[in-house]
Amino acid sequence: MQPFVMSKMARRLLRLLTGCQRLASSPSVSPHFCRPSTGLPFGSGFVRSMVALPFSFSLKPRDFSLPNSSWSAEMMRLYDFYNSQCESENESGEKQRGPWRRVPSYNRTLKYATGGAYLSKLIQSKNRLFTRSIKTTGAAFEYVMFNNKEEQRCICIFQAGHLLEGPPGHVHGGAIATMIDSVTGAHAAFMSGPVMTANLNINYRSPIPLGSTVILESSLDNKEGRKTFISCKVTSTDGSKLHTEATGNIIYSMLHLFDSNFIS
Amino acid sequence: MQPFVMSKMARRLLRLLTGCQRLASSPSVSPHFCRPSTGLPFGSGFVRSMVALPFSFSLKPRDFSLPNSSWSAEMMRLYDFYNSQCESENESGEKQRGPWRRVPSYNRTLKYATGGAYLSKLIQSKNRLFTRSIKTTGAAFEYVMFNNKEEQRCICIFQAGHLLEGPPGHVHGGAIATMIDSVTGAHAAFMSGPVMTANLNINYRSPIPLGSTVILESSLDNKEGRKTFISCKVTSTDGSKLHTEATGNIIYSMLHLFDSNFIS
Repeated sequence: MQPFVMSKMARRLLRLLTGCQRLASSPSVSPHFCRPSTGLPFGSGFVRSMVALPFSFSLKPRDFSLPNSSWSAEMMRLYDFYNSQCESENESGEKQRGPWRRVPSYNRTLKYATGGAYLSKLIQSKNRLFTRSIKTTGAAFEYVMFNNKEEQRCICIFQAGHLLEGPPGHVHGGAIATMIDSVTGAHAAFMSGPVMTANLNINYRSPIPLGSTVILESSLDNKEGRKTFISCKVTSTDGSKLHTEATGNIIYSMLHLFDSNFIS
Repeated sequence: MQPFVMSKMARRLLRLLTGCQRLASSPSVSPHFCRPSTGLPFGSGFVRSMVALPFSFSLKPRDFSLPNSSWSAEMMRLYDFYNSQCESENESGEKQRGPWRRVPSYNRTLKYATGGAYLSKLIQSKNRLFTRSIKTTGAAFEYVMFNNKEEQRCICIFQAGHLLEGPPGHVHGGAIATMIDSVTGAHAAFMSGPVMTANLNINYRSPIPLGSTVILESSLDNKEGRKTFISCKVTSTDGSKLHTEATGNIIYSMLHLFDSNFIS
């Protein structure tokens, strides 16, 4: 790759990845977008120049994946169930890592991201992750994700607040799509590093009442080169009712975007 | 149809439609969900019983499809262009209806909707349409739709605020899906009455920078019985750049939901 003949698209992605790398050097990572434990797929000299950038947080950001007072009893029950499997005790009573891992969640992917070219610098600093942009607890997206690396599964417990209305009393199809995009994106990022969604094919089967708690389960279908194919189902918490399913979800590794024909 | 042996699903939809009919008797209709000028597809006795329900608004609701100070110059230019085509003058200088019609937009589909079974009555009254739930102007979804009945097209001018972030500096894929669902849903409702989205198949081609103004164009592909197939493209305002496209968007008339196998 010749860094000085990159296309406009490549330069834009480079800015995203630069921010991502800065994030990777911080404890306040959002694993939705990139894995903190994984270096970027560039030459080491390139990475070094980014790590050297100044970067700090003035305040410890709030982790939205932790319980709050708006969470229903069902949401708490499921949280406790998966959270208890993040750590287990062996025969001698020592704690060891379990099969699941809770995914922290913040209201910015990057605290001071580049991008937002059409916004003033002042507004750019106010950018917020779409799913965490409403401050009132319980009003919009309440969710926590858990990732199971061994089983290549990711689950999300999602409680839909009253500001997500589409059909009266029920969750907007776009809000459901948002959660599917978030969960499958996070899942793919755990497996492949920084990714971008290229396709979402969503079948809405049964409306989700506002206020209810549902489970999204993301599972790996296939990996082909830099493409990751993922399926996602949204069901009632006991699994008896299928609300929505997404198939053929194709997620590209960001490296792919440096190809001129990255989406064929 | 035997009204007393309706399934649970049918009863739920009946509640939605009841609300919709109440809305249809009010000037503050959200055409996204149902057409104010169109009666519901039920027997007249059924409809009469719903029209007789008490219904009033205490305050005239804000129409979010009208310009506000956050709209960019490009958003205003496009608004003026389509708005000027909602009314035209004939040879004798008399005003007459043009090919386009601006679609009003409110922060509730129904002011006092039924539904939201898992929410308290207090919270139910606070339900808000997902795309209009953030009060700060310019921070999230700023949009206005225009419908062209003759050409069976619907366009939406969309300005993406800083609270819709996904990839740093760019619009979240779920926010784009939300706008596609909203525009295609409104378009189908104009043609077929109350509808629900059954499928969205979205291809993300090029990320949308936060703060930019884009155009969504929804066009009819086909109608088969109670199914409406719609395509939607999201492009830059000059049409030169394709950001996202949705194909095979299937939208069912709500009547379809009274069939036991409504989604085959």
